[in-house]
Amino acid sequence: MKHIVIFAFLMLSFLASAQQQVEKWKVIEVILNGPNNGNPFVENNISAVFTTAGHSDTIAGFYDGNGKYKVRFSPAIEGKWTYQTISNVKALNGKKGAFVCTPALKENHGPVVVKDTFHFAYADGKPHFSFGTTCYAWVHQGDSLANLTLKTLSNGYFNKMRMCIFPKDYDWNKNEPELYPFEGKPLKDWDYTRFNPAYFRNIEKRIQQLDSMGIEADLIVFHPYDRWGFKDMGMAVNEFYIKYIIARFAAFKNVWWSMANEYDFMNSLKTEDWDKIIRLFAENDPYNRLRGIHNGAKWYDHTNPLLTHASIQNEDTYKAKELRKKYKKPVVYDECRYEGNVPWSWGNLTPQEMINKFWRGITNGGFAGHGETYVMEDPVKWPSESDDILWWSKGGVLRGQSAERIKFAKGIVEQSPGQLSPYPLFFDWAPFSAVAYKDEYILAYLNLDQPKSAFINTLPKNTSYKADIIDTWNMTITPVEGELKGTVLIQLPQKPGIVIRFIKSNSK
Amino acid sequence: MKHIVIFAFLMLSFLASAQQQVEKWKVIEVILNGPNNGNPFVENNISAVFTTAGHSDTIAGFYDGNGKYKVRFSPAIEGKWTYQTISNVKALNGKKGAFVCTPALKENHGPVVVKDTFHFAYADGKPHFSFGTTCYAWVHQGDSLANLTLKTLSNGYFNKMRMCIFPKDYDWNKNEPELYPFEGKPLKDWDYTRFNPAYFRNIEKRIQQLDSMGIEADLIVFHPYDRWGFKDMGMAVNEFYIKYIIARFAAFKNVWWSMANEYDFMNSLKTEDWDKIIRLFAENDPYNRLRGIHNGAKWYDHTNPLLTHASIQNEDTYKAKELRKKYKKPVVYDECRYEGNVPWSWGNLTPQEMINKFWRGITNGGFAGHGETYVMEDPVKWPSESDDILWWSKGGVLRGQSAERIKFAKGIVEQSPGQLSPYPLFFDWAPFSAVAYKDEYILAYLNLDQPKSAFINTLPKNTSYKADIIDTWNMTITPVEGELKGTVLIQLPQKPGIVIRFIKSNSK
Repeated sequence: MKHIVIFAFLMLSFLASAQQQVEKWKVIEVILNGPNNGNPFVENNISAVFTTAGHSDTIAGFYDGNGKYKVRFSPAIEGKWTYQTISNVKALNGKKGAFVCTPALKENHGPVVVKDTFHFAYADGKPHFSFGTTCYAWVHQGDSLANLTLKTLSNGYFNKMRMCIFPKDYDWNKNEPELYPFEGKPLKDWDYTRFNPAYFRNIEKRIQQLDSMGIEADLIVFHPYDRWGFKDMGMAVNEFYIKYIIARFAAFKNVWWSMANEYDFMNSLKTEDWDKIIRLFAENDPYNRLRGIHNGAKWYDHTNPLLTHASIQNEDTYKAKELRKKYKKPVVYDECRYEGNVPWSWGNLTPQEMINKFWRGITNGGFAGHGETYVMEDPVKWPSESDDILWWSKGGVLRGQSAERIKFAKGIVEQSPGQLSPYPLFFDWAPFSAVAYKDEYILAYLNLDQPKSAFINTLPKNTSYKADIIDTWNMTITPVEGELKGTVLIQLPQKPGIVIRFIKSNSK
Repeated sequence: MKHIVIFAFLMLSFLASAQQQVEKWKVIEVILNGPNNGNPFVENNISAVFTTAGHSDTIAGFYDGNGKYKVRFSPAIEGKWTYQTISNVKALNGKKGAFVCTPALKENHGPVVVKDTFHFAYADGKPHFSFGTTCYAWVHQGDSLANLTLKTLSNGYFNKMRMCIFPKDYDWNKNEPELYPFEGKPLKDWDYTRFNPAYFRNIEKRIQQLDSMGIEADLIVFHPYDRWGFKDMGMAVNEFYIKYIIARFAAFKNVWWSMANEYDFMNSLKTEDWDKIIRLFAENDPYNRLRGIHNGAKWYDHTNPLLTHASIQNEDTYKAKELRKKYKKPVVYDECRYEGNVPWSWGNLTPQEMINKFWRGITNGGFAGHGETYVMEDPVKWPSESDDILWWSKGGVLRGQSAERIKFAKGIVEQSPGQLSPYPLFFDWAPFSAVAYKDEYILAYLNLDQPKSAFINTLPKNTSYKADIIDTWNMTITPVEGELKGTVLIQLPQKPGIVIRFIKSNSK
């Protein structure tokens, strides 16, 4: 197993004077005591300039309630750093300190960034192959269920989680959250000038728990499934909220920003509002964390240069190849329908088809995302009246059969010595697809078809390969006898879901 | 079973004077003896004018070898007919005769025609729902195998057969035919001015055997898989050949004309040549039999008004709905990949997916076509070196699992009281689809998904339905208890391939 699960998370917090250490890409916090009268959220500001040799970062802080002001910083440069705070409050202004940024330890590869146009990689260069899942409202279900969700995630199926910052109102998710993001009371009596820090601390805890398992937190900033009014706050409040979550969350290296789930289903926001929201993140997030925007029916224009990748809802994951060309970005089918049995068509894939969508995405140069929507009650209830716990909404346990196979797929892909790009192993008209790292590691996928043989005459000339028959459903890897070269006919098990892997033989 | 297999076919042949009878839409032949010197195919012509009250048809005949000249006629009007021959040969000219056209018997519904823009119907008005298969070269494999093919077809799986007039050269089909269409010898030493009547008589026999089983013969006029030169005869010979096959075959009521299999893979013919070929059929076929043209990679422009229907090679049968709108014609996915296990991607569908493509086609207002490509040898051979008998090419027996389920689907569809058109039972974004005859007989298909329930709020108001859960794979029909009305939640077996059928309750 790759990631060791450490629920106890190390955060180096300290006051002004003590010399401290922080691991590269992890978080150091400057915590200051200040006034708690008036409305500190709107009246008082706090930021700090962090400086190392030849470089400085100016980082906005936030008010955390009870007179505590915090500036969170994640240094990307090793060595000695100093900082000095800036505030309109005298007690918070001009505070100085110093710390040392130490090298990243073994499992710390830094934040995920875009690399070579089409790929994701961690900051240290290690490829990041995206294998995400979705638990929209898991952070709003209380500790007991959240811990169960984390236990499920600790099995290493996924390396990204799509999750909403705001609570969710939808079929199978009619319960109230334990906390609310603003002061006030439900349903709609909110003071939009005062955040509820406890609400955000809970989310931070979850973000860090995910990070400790090597899971990216794809934070959904807005979404339409709401009964509390958070989808209709107006752009002024939206901006206030965005700056607050940047100040709180952006320092965590596993944070991605998803502007919305199904942006186009939010009637109160127009395209120019979304453009502005994207720009707010680009201009205010000092770490430039990944930015995507997820569609319902109408795709966003992912050529927007401020979007780092194309985040797509669509089931045709095999079109990743053409979307890469169109957008010139990494392509993630964050929602390609879910494994489950609900009456809504987005949530009743067989596990076989869920896995198929993953492999079609992968072998067309993109990535797919998982979700699971099994209702267990019998007889079934009306969706709006069921309180069943579905992974896609609340987390908990997985009831399906795709997660294990996604983990298996992740393992195969991560064995690649480098990034995978579409590879012309098949004729253009063939529905089959292949990706490769150079001509060294080729993954060819035959969909849910059942050929008894593969005829391949497009391997690089004068190059020998070892091949494996990978059964993506039964999770077996069977070596093909001998070395392959030139035009080959490979006998197959006549089953759906076969990948043929070619690994270039050592030339020695 | 619907069609009784009668291999002995009744053909009413007679010479000039005898008063004879012919059943409506069946064939009457005028047979004349004439010269066999010179080249009767090019030097002598024969036709006849057939006349009944207020109506006459002029029909071209053909030379059938050994001094026999024939004019074939299929009357569509009941009653007394007379005829008179016309020829440039004195012995064949001005011959007169008479016959009576009697009403069609029970199983004789006449030729298939286009009805109400989007549908096929037999001439007597009975809907024709197309459930075709493909045995490209079955008529060129000799009697023994052809009889086995007919025995297989007698199980009633299909009501259309795609078949080539010319012999075929391709993987798994490298054998020589028993007969050739022209005088001369293989491979390419042909006298393109002299047909071999025995070759065409064999095909006629097969056409009539199919008709006796209620199977349309979708005759493929040209195709690219050829080593004898028949794909490169030039337009003058093509026209000579087209007029000959019209004279010979058009009178058989089950004949459809498919200009080509994969027209765009025939490099010697340009788009204007294909336009001309289509026009030749439109201008010369007195019965105006159905005309289609089948694509390889590049679709023909099916808006051509001389094409009666869109004959498509593509696997996305669910797009029938949009193709109907585009072409304003019946849409037949004659090739949507085949059930089988060959290395070429067009021939390795699972049977489940073959059936899925049928139902997706049907429930989007179109039709799909079957083919089967199982190689049985183990270990597998190179495709060009195997002489295995694959249904799609040579006929014989079926080895797969889709044919039985296609027959089952055909039965469900044929229970409709009328033509089926797309019906808005699901949201537009849902991949599910439905067709209906008015609001009386609705077929809703849930693809290979596995919902445990269906939530439907789009049934016509104030109308009661009886519903059935149809498992298209296990071929079961399970009634839903009670009468359904308004918004309904129907519990399903959580399996792929479910159709829900709604039948309007008798209002009495």
